[in-house]
Amino acid sequence: MYRTKTCGELRLSDVGQTVTLAGWVQSVHNLGALTFIDLRDRYGITQLAFTEDSSEELKKQAAKLGREFVIQATGKVEERYSKNKNLPTGEIEILVSELTIINESLTPPFTIEENSDGGDDLRMKYRYLDLRRPTVRQNLELRHKFAFEVRRYLDEHGFLEIETPVLVNSTPEGARDFVVPSRMNPGQFYALPQSPQTLKQLLMVAGMDRYFQIVKCFRDEDLRADRQPEFTQIDCEMSFVEQEDILQMFEGMSRHLFKTIKGIDIPALPRMTWADAMKFYGSDKPDTRFGMKFVELKTTQVDNASKEIVPSIFPEGFAVFDSAAYIGAICAEGQAVYTRKQLDQLTDFVKRPQVGAKGLVYARVQEDGSVKSSVDKFYTPETLNLLKEKMSAKPGDLILILSGDDAMKVRKQLSELRLEMGARMGLRDKNKYSCLWVIDFPMYEWSDEENRLMAMHHPFTSPKPEDIPLLDTDPASVRANAYDMVINGVEVGGGSIRIHDAKLQQKIFEILGFTPEQAQQKFGFLMNAFKYGAPPHGGLAYGLDRFVSLFAGLDSIRDCIAFPKNNSGRDVMLDAPGVIDQTQLDELCIDVKLPSTK
Amino acid sequence: MYRTKTCGELRLSDVGQTVTLAGWVQSVHNLGALTFIDLRDRYGITQLAFTEDSSEELKKQAAKLGREFVIQATGKVEERYSKNKNLPTGEIEILVSELTIINESLTPPFTIEENSDGGDDLRMKYRYLDLRRPTVRQNLELRHKFAFEVRRYLDEHGFLEIETPVLVNSTPEGARDFVVPSRMNPGQFYALPQSPQTLKQLLMVAGMDRYFQIVKCFRDEDLRADRQPEFTQIDCEMSFVEQEDILQMFEGMSRHLFKTIKGIDIPALPRMTWADAMKFYGSDKPDTRFGMKFVELKTTQVDNASKEIVPSIFPEGFAVFDSAAYIGAICAEGQAVYTRKQLDQLTDFVKRPQVGAKGLVYARVQEDGSVKSSVDKFYTPETLNLLKEKMSAKPGDLILILSGDDAMKVRKQLSELRLEMGARMGLRDKNKYSCLWVIDFPMYEWSDEENRLMAMHHPFTSPKPEDIPLLDTDPASVRANAYDMVINGVEVGGGSIRIHDAKLQQKIFEILGFTPEQAQQKFGFLMNAFKYGAPPHGGLAYGLDRFVSLFAGLDSIRDCIAFPKNNSGRDVMLDAPGVIDQTQLDELCIDVKLPSTK
Repeated sequence: MYRTKTCGELRLSDVGQTVTLAGWVQSVHNLGALTFIDLRDRYGITQLAFTEDSSEELKKQAAKLGREFVIQATGKVEERYSKNKNLPTGEIEILVSELTIINESLTPPFTIEENSDGGDDLRMKYRYLDLRRPTVRQNLELRHKFAFEVRRYLDEHGFLEIETPVLVNSTPEGARDFVVPSRMNPGQFYALPQSPQTLKQLLMVAGMDRYFQIVKCFRDEDLRADRQPEFTQIDCEMSFVEQEDILQMFEGMSRHLFKTIKGIDIPALPRMTWADAMKFYGSDKPDTRFGMKFVELKTTQVDNASKEIVPSIFPEGFAVFDSAAYIGAICAEGQAVYTRKQLDQLTDFVKRPQVGAKGLVYARVQEDGSVKSSVDKFYTPETLNLLKEKMSAKPGDLILILSGDDAMKVRKQLSELRLEMGARMGLRDKNKYSCLWVIDFPMYEWSDEENRLMAMHHPFTSPKPEDIPLLDTDPASVRANAYDMVINGVEVGGGSIRIHDAKLQQKIFEILGFTPEQAQQKFGFLMNAFKYGAPPHGGLAYGLDRFVSLFAGLDSIRDCIAFPKNNSGRDVMLDAPGVIDQTQLDELCIDVKLPSTK
Repeated sequence: MYRTKTCGELRLSDVGQTVTLAGWVQSVHNLGALTFIDLRDRYGITQLAFTEDSSEELKKQAAKLGREFVIQATGKVEERYSKNKNLPTGEIEILVSELTIINESLTPPFTIEENSDGGDDLRMKYRYLDLRRPTVRQNLELRHKFAFEVRRYLDEHGFLEIETPVLVNSTPEGARDFVVPSRMNPGQFYALPQSPQTLKQLLMVAGMDRYFQIVKCFRDEDLRADRQPEFTQIDCEMSFVEQEDILQMFEGMSRHLFKTIKGIDIPALPRMTWADAMKFYGSDKPDTRFGMKFVELKTTQVDNASKEIVPSIFPEGFAVFDSAAYIGAICAEGQAVYTRKQLDQLTDFVKRPQVGAKGLVYARVQEDGSVKSSVDKFYTPETLNLLKEKMSAKPGDLILILSGDDAMKVRKQLSELRLEMGARMGLRDKNKYSCLWVIDFPMYEWSDEENRLMAMHHPFTSPKPEDIPLLDTDPASVRANAYDMVINGVEVGGGSIRIHDAKLQQKIFEILGFTPEQAQQKFGFLMNAFKYGAPPHGGLAYGLDRFVSLFAGLDSIRDCIAFPKNNSGRDVMLDAPGVIDQTQLDELCIDVKLPSTK
């Protein structure tokens, strides 16, 4: 026993006790006659005191201490003279009578405080030191609690956590697989699962009824800030359910998580169709912490988002609008004060290649109700007044308009602009949560690259029963029994009701362009299983890293992962990946063939 | 909503209710006027009844049903005429008024009952059908509950579950790694972790204080019946602890698991030194459900198990015993009735190559107290009487003696014989549990293959402080702060206190034959971390599959794994591993190089 108490638990009521603590030296304050040491462990910080009356030996020991030394200290709990209200232990200190240096420390390469002076690379290399920082540690504590509460809720609702294998077979659709050469089966490879999708469906065929798993998944994709080659999914599936049963069950889980972890009672989750999400927010994961919904000023196309044509409110005259297939706008409340310079910045923002708009039209509603716009010369005050009315704009508001010849593209640009304005206006508060279900996703999306319809979710997703007749006549307009849970503009989870009817499944494969042989080759084991009594089933999967990041208010999922990889997929602390021995390659019957040696 | 109740919950008190059930047709009993169907889901079996009064339409539907069809049935709960006391729902049945066939089923390739008629291979290929069998399903339910209770206990004791990466670097010691080629880092490979050993030690350096993880681990070894290439570990580590703290904490966890899952109060775990385990049971994982401890009749060698020489109780005369370095025996109570044929079987058993003894000497204690043995001609009745006394044998007992020139080898042979006798005598009852700690393992074991001392546990294991001086003089006799938890002869878990002192670690590496350069190259990232204030720490890991198998009374861990692999490392259901496309190989910069094409 190295300690009788932790550094986080002593209070005024403990004064007089003799205790032993152990931990890391956070800081040493030498005030001549007095020396104070902040001792840190996972549970908190406690002040150790050495006074004039301390023995010479003790003083000598204390003088040796440096940052991050590991020590053990025994002494009496005393009331502090000058209390620290920022620390739960701030009212007491330990008058040290015994001190042992358990381990010394080199000077750490960066400061181990709330805000470190270490750059990203340095902190990742010394991740074990970075993790000592309270902010990072708290993220891992939150993640633990989050996962535990997920399990508690699902266990209480009859779900079984069932482990599925990590060494599986390569999946035919989706992202690139990581593969693992099999020594015992030369020339053959396992794949690491991108998700346990087919396995959980087999578990439903197996009668497991309610399954979940918090499980690592793997995708060999080029990494972006918010992607990791390995990530963790809360994977769930239920049998004998319809979409409504699943929405209810997992809305309940979210409520449980918000309540037990954040202490927040969230309201019933609104449901928004995919069509409305695209029409009003230009995104299938709308950030509904704020309004600023799109107003369609012109659409000449009917698509999955807009079911009817909207004649332009603008008479002919301005070529850009005249030729546009779509004109949409948002109204930024009270932002008419935007200067010309700020508006130029916004124009630059929408013209960035990541957004891709051609330009930005704006209109300020003046205090007197009149409208002053960047297109004044093309339109009469009446037209601009009509614009104001359509936008429900008040004096002081700023109207921002985008247009283009592809409605979906412009919607996405306008969505970026809306999010930017939301951020500038302080409407995207990390401590405010707005959750919703986005439902009725289209079954398919057109792929220009593949020149065919692709499954939007995955090929096992069930169409909405009322849309099944459309499979033959207008497959692109068929809606799926698919749903996403969106919080603050982040898709935290999504899923679908699966097809359990072999004939319907075959038809879906046909529409996706598979011959029966291809379908059998690619999905044979699942198709075969479905011949032996598949129950109706459906489920969803949450991205644990994203969900936790949202609860922690993080900008990157990396900060809630103990040992993340960088954008090149490297773990710089472990220095992985690395080269392996030729003997190991020989055993695996593979050879490295670098491009230059081809 | 496909159902209002499950097939496991209806009781007499529900009679009169109209309910809807959904599930699989377990069996159809057509008795002419009456048809009974057993409907099965995860929760149980409920009888559906169709009577003479049922509509023609209903009867026609019912007549179509076959085994494993998925159906939905609505009807009134009625009291059964002939009750089935073996089923919780056996007092009621559903008089069906509506029946829907949700999905048909081909005739399954084996019966889906408690005991299936399917062979192992067939059941593995159709694992999704095998899992419908109540016995297999119950194993997965037990596993879920087991893992959940582990988490509950550890959470209550302040442990954080922290996920460590699956894509790591190749470990220098231990078994063969599975490797994963990195596309983004051509020519380089990740390895899948054999255990998160070094990562959890880094988490201790990071100040996480109490860590656990239920985590997949990977070993590319040739498989035996009780091995899987991927297996699940309950991995734990604590800081600022001594061995006693860990033993207490995890003895508590075992008590919690036995209590909450099996309803058993287990007594305090006895502790047995490794030396005693080897001396009295010939095994570091003794099955202590029964006695039959070894008696040493002669040892001429002093080793880590026997610290003193035991002069032979046999005078010269029988060459086998005369030349033996070790003679050991067990006393099988009441087994003097063994016939000559049975004794020949036992002799064959110990002579099998897996056991490896040269022969077996036996002695029966007759009803009159005299001893009749297979070596009567070499020894006087007085010597045989002395044997009887040494063995504390009573009339009716059977003494079995093995000898040889390597004490450790004979002990292991005698251990096999003891286990065999225990099994024959019904002393290895699966419903009885005997748990203990085996402690004080040696630090090293000699490897004839490598011609050097090898770490028995792993190179980070701390020696017992009192044995540290022996590191210089007699390293082979140094004991470690290492411990195993053994239940019914199965090592369910084990661990050690780790070295946190860089100098001691260096010395251990030297004894293991590493140069400082080699040590740095192989363990550098851990050694570096230890320079920044490593706390004293230790931990252990349980094999979840084994622990659960023990609770379920299984002979193989496979039966508590949803989708296990066979002895060639194949998943015959998924048909993994498999070949991958050349384009995929090209992207990964590797080539397959089969032996025949070399």
